[in-house]
Amino acid sequence: MLSLLSYETVGENVSPEHPQVVPITIFVAVLCLCLVIGHLLEENRWVNESITAIFIGGLTGILILVLRKGQSSHLLRFSEELFFIYLLPPIIFNAGFQVKKKQFFQNFITIMLFGIVGVFISTVIISLGSWWLFPKLGFLGLAPRDYLAIGTIFSSTDTVCTLQVLHQDETPLLYSIVFGEGVVNDATSVVLFNAVQKMDVSKINSQTILSVIGDFLYLFSTSTALGIGVGLLTSLVLKTLYFGKHSSIRELAMMVLMAYLSYMLAELLELSGILTVFFCGIIMSHYSWHNVTESSRITARHVFAMLSFVAETFIFLYVGMDAFDIEKWKMTKLSLGTSLGIYSSIVFLILVGRAVFVFPLSAFSNFMNRRKTSPLTFKQQTVIWWAGLMRGAVSIALAFKQFTYSGVTLDPINATMITNTIIVVLFTTLVFGFLTKPLVNYLITHRMRNQNNRGGGSGGEQPRSPKDDVVLPLLSFDESASANMQIARESFSLLMDRPVYTIHHYWRRFDNAYMRPIFGGPRHSRSEC
Amino acid sequence: MLSLLSYETVGENVSPEHPQVVPITIFVAVLCLCLVIGHLLEENRWVNESITAIFIGGLTGILILVLRKGQSSHLLRFSEELFFIYLLPPIIFNAGFQVKKKQFFQNFITIMLFGIVGVFISTVIISLGSWWLFPKLGFLGLAPRDYLAIGTIFSSTDTVCTLQVLHQDETPLLYSIVFGEGVVNDATSVVLFNAVQKMDVSKINSQTILSVIGDFLYLFSTSTALGIGVGLLTSLVLKTLYFGKHSSIRELAMMVLMAYLSYMLAELLELSGILTVFFCGIIMSHYSWHNVTESSRITARHVFAMLSFVAETFIFLYVGMDAFDIEKWKMTKLSLGTSLGIYSSIVFLILVGRAVFVFPLSAFSNFMNRRKTSPLTFKQQTVIWWAGLMRGAVSIALAFKQFTYSGVTLDPINATMITNTIIVVLFTTLVFGFLTKPLVNYLITHRMRNQNNRGGGSGGEQPRSPKDDVVLPLLSFDESASANMQIARESFSLLMDRPVYTIHHYWRRFDNAYMRPIFGGPRHSRSEC
Repeated sequence: MLSLLSYETVGENVSPEHPQVVPITIFVAVLCLCLVIGHLLEENRWVNESITAIFIGGLTGILILVLRKGQSSHLLRFSEELFFIYLLPPIIFNAGFQVKKKQFFQNFITIMLFGIVGVFISTVIISLGSWWLFPKLGFLGLAPRDYLAIGTIFSSTDTVCTLQVLHQDETPLLYSIVFGEGVVNDATSVVLFNAVQKMDVSKINSQTILSVIGDFLYLFSTSTALGIGVGLLTSLVLKTLYFGKHSSIRELAMMVLMAYLSYMLAELLELSGILTVFFCGIIMSHYSWHNVTESSRITARHVFAMLSFVAETFIFLYVGMDAFDIEKWKMTKLSLGTSLGIYSSIVFLILVGRAVFVFPLSAFSNFMNRRKTSPLTFKQQTVIWWAGLMRGAVSIALAFKQFTYSGVTLDPINATMITNTIIVVLFTTLVFGFLTKPLVNYLITHRMRNQNNRGGGSGGEQPRSPKDDVVLPLLSFDESASANMQIARESFSLLMDRPVYTIHHYWRRFDNAYMRPIFGGPRHSRSEC
Repeated sequence: MLSLLSYETVGENVSPEHPQVVPITIFVAVLCLCLVIGHLLEENRWVNESITAIFIGGLTGILILVLRKGQSSHLLRFSEELFFIYLLPPIIFNAGFQVKKKQFFQNFITIMLFGIVGVFISTVIISLGSWWLFPKLGFLGLAPRDYLAIGTIFSSTDTVCTLQVLHQDETPLLYSIVFGEGVVNDATSVVLFNAVQKMDVSKINSQTILSVIGDFLYLFSTSTALGIGVGLLTSLVLKTLYFGKHSSIRELAMMVLMAYLSYMLAELLELSGILTVFFCGIIMSHYSWHNVTESSRITARHVFAMLSFVAETFIFLYVGMDAFDIEKWKMTKLSLGTSLGIYSSIVFLILVGRAVFVFPLSAFSNFMNRRKTSPLTFKQQTVIWWAGLMRGAVSIALAFKQFTYSGVTLDPINATMITNTIIVVLFTTLVFGFLTKPLVNYLITHRMRNQNNRGGGSGGEQPRSPKDDVVLPLLSFDESASANMQIARESFSLLMDRPVYTIHHYWRRFDNAYMRPIFGGPRHSRSEC
C-alpha cells in the first residue's frame, strides 16, 4: 500500500530489494502505539482520536528528523493516490454501512442543503475572500483556477472530531445531520474540485456556472445509481447462491471485494467514487447483510469498522508526520508575518464561509418543516456550524493534487499553499477539535438531548414506534379494501403535510413488498407469501 | 497494493493520474468471478479452488491479449515484493492461527523431518540432477549458483490442493503432517534460497555446507523466538488494557497490525518472516484470541481466513494470467523439443527428489515411534509424497527473484528459466492437482480414516481424552504429595517412552499454571487461584 509513495529509507543498511520494509514497519508500529494511547485517553475530556494520532505522528516526525540530523522528516511523500485509492474507500463505505438509514433519509433535505448548497456557498466565499485578501497580504502569483481550488479545498470539512463527541442515541437529529453532511460534503467538494479543474476559467459566465452545476447533478445521480446497482447485484448474488452453504469466508470476501469494486468502477467511469461507495454501503447493510450467515454478519460489521478506523488513524498520523517535513518549509519565501496573516485569513474565511450558510439554511430548513414540533434551535445550529470547522485529510489530498506533481513541488508559491493547508488542518483539528468536547457538552445539555428525538420518527404529528413502521405497510396487503382506502386517504394528507416522511413511508411499503423478497432482508413472517 | 508492480494500462482514455485504476478494477472483478465459480464448483469431483483460479486467470489473460491485438497479456508484472510483503504474510499467519496446535506439536518431529531435512535432500537432488541433465538437453549458460537456486525453487511445495481434499477430522494424522510440512517447507525453502544466494559458490566444501546449516538453524530459532515474543506481547497488551471496554474495533485492529508487524520486523532484521508470522499466529490463537470480546473472536477468525483466502486466490489468478504474457515466450530461444525435455526432466526430478526422502524419512519416523500402535502405512506415505508434488506461488516468486530484475529480464536464459517455472507450476497444479481428489479418495478408504486418529492423542499407551489433558495437570496442584510423586514417576517412564508426548504434557502443565494466567486463555475454574 505504502509503495504508492516515493519512499526514502532511513538507514543505509537496508537491503535494496525491499525499500518499503522500513517505512511500513515504522508506520505499523506507530499505528499500534496510537491504538494503545487512544484507548488509554478514551475517557479524557479534551483529547480525541484524531488529536492523539496527529500528536504521535508529529513526535515520530521529530524523532526521524533528529535521527537523520535534520535532513527530512518524511518517510513517505504524501500521495493522493494512496489516499483516494486505498484509504478513503473503506472510510466512506463504512459510513454508508453503519449509517442509520431511517434518520438519514428523514433528514435528507436538510443534509443535502448543508452538504451541497453549503459547499457551493462556502467555496464562493473562500475563493472570493482569498482572491481579495492574499494580494493585500503580499502573497501574489496564484492563478484564478488556484483561487477556485482553494475555495473547494477549504470547504471540505472533517466531522470526525464532532462525531466522536455527539451520541447517536442521545441526539439523533443532530448526529444524523452532522454525519450526513460530512459524507455529502466529502463527495461534493471532491466532485466540485474536479469540475473546477476541468473548467475554462478565462471566461466565467452564467453558462459555465450552469454547466458546472449540470455536471455536478449528472455525476451525483449516475454515481448514486452505480452504487445502488452494485449493492443490489451483490445482494442478489449472495441471496441466490447462498455461499454460506459451503464457506462463510466466500460471502465475506464477496462483500468486501464488491464494495471496493463499486468504488473503482466509479473512478474508472470518472464518476464520484465516494458517492458510489457510500450508497453501495447503504444497500449492502440494508439487503446483502441479511443474506449471509450469522458469523459473517458480525464479522462484516467489525471488519468494515476496523478498516475505516485504521485508515482514519493512518491519515491523521500521516498528517502529523508530514508537518515536520522541513523541505517544504524551506521552500516558502514569505516572512513569518505574511504567513501568519495568510493562515489567519484562511481560518477567518472558513469561519465566515460556514456561518454564512449554516444559519440561513437552518432557518430555511425550519421554515420547510414548520409544521413539525421541534425546529433546529440556535444552539443546535451552533453545533452544526462548529462541527464543520475542522479541516482534514480530504483538504490535504486535494491541496497536494492541485499544488504538487506526485507529491513534489519546486515552486515556492505551490509549496506555500501546501504548508498553508497543513497549518490550517493542524490548527483547526487541534484547537477547534480540542474545544469541541467542552463546547458540545455546554450547548447540548441533558434537557436538550431529550428534546431532540425528532429525527427518530417520533415527535411529528403521527408519533410512531419503529415496530409500527414495519407492521403498517404489511397490514395493507392483508386487510380489507376499505382499510386500504383509509390508509390511502391518510397517506395523501400526509404527503401534503410532510413530503419526505410520506415518501419514506411509501418506500417502506415498496421495500417490504418487492425489494426485500428479491434482494433479502428481515421480513415479517406474514409477508413471506 | 498492486502499485508494486509496474503496470500497463489497457486503454488510452484512462486519466494519467490513476494508472492503477484499470488493473485493480479488472483484478477485483475477476476475483469476484473466481469466488462465484469456485462456489458453484465446490462439489465437483475433479476441480479445486486453485485450478479454477488458474483457469480463469488464463482466460482473462487470453482475453486481454486479444483485446490488445497480441501485444501482451499482463496487466501487471510479477513482483516478489507484492508477493512477499502483502500476499504471503496473511496466508502464513492464518495457517498458524487455524492450525490444531495439539496435533501439530505431537507430530512435530515427523513434520520437521519432512519440512527441513526433506527440503535439503530434495534441493541436492534437483540441483545435481539439473546440473547433469540440462547441458545434455542442450540448455547451457547457467551458473552454479543458478543450479542451486533451481534446487530450492523446485523444492518448495504447494499443499493447498491436497489440503482441500483431506479432512482434518477424518484423517487428523495425515492432515497435520501434510499441513505442517507445507508451512515448514515454505519457510525452509525461502530461508535456504536466501542462504544459497549469499553463499560463495566458487568453493563449496564441507565448511560452507556447515555454515549454511548453521545459518539456517540460527534463522530458524531467532525467527521463532521473535514470533513468539510479538505474540506474547500482543496477548499481554490485550489482556492488561482490555480494549473491549471501549471498542472492540481496537482489539481487532491491534491483532491484525501486530501480526503484520511481526512479519515486517522479521524482514527488517533479515530473519524469516514466514516462520515468525506462523509462530505469532500460533501464540495469538492460543492466548491473545481469548483476551478479546466474543464478537472480536468470531471476527478475528473470519478476517484472517478471508485475507488468506483472497491472497491465495489472487496468486493463482495471477499465475494463470501471467502464463499468457507472450513477451517471455518470444525471448526463449530453445526448440520445442528441448523445452519439453527440460520441463519433463524438472517434473521427473521433482517426483524423484520427493520420493527419495518421503519413504525413508517415513520409515525413520515409524522407527522412532515404534512403540505406538499405528505407523505411517505405505498408502499414507504415498499421499504425503503426492501432496508435495504440486509447485505454487513460492516457486514462482523465488524464480522471479533469481532470474529477473524487478520482474523484467532481457536475457534469454533467464527468460527460459521463468517460463520453465511457470510451465512446471501450471503442469503440477493442473495435472497432479486434478488427480489428487480421486487418488486420495482411492487410497484413504473409510476404514483407514477411522484407524488414523493417532494424531489426536488417542491410540498411544495412555489413551486420554482431551478433557483429561486439561484436568490432569491441575490436579497435581491440589492433590496430596503422594499423588504428585505417583504422577512424577509415571511421567518419567512416559518421557523414556514417548519424548514428544511427554514434553507436550509438561508444557500443558506449565501453560496452565503460569502462561495462561499471565497471557490469557481458557482456564479451568479451579486453576484461578
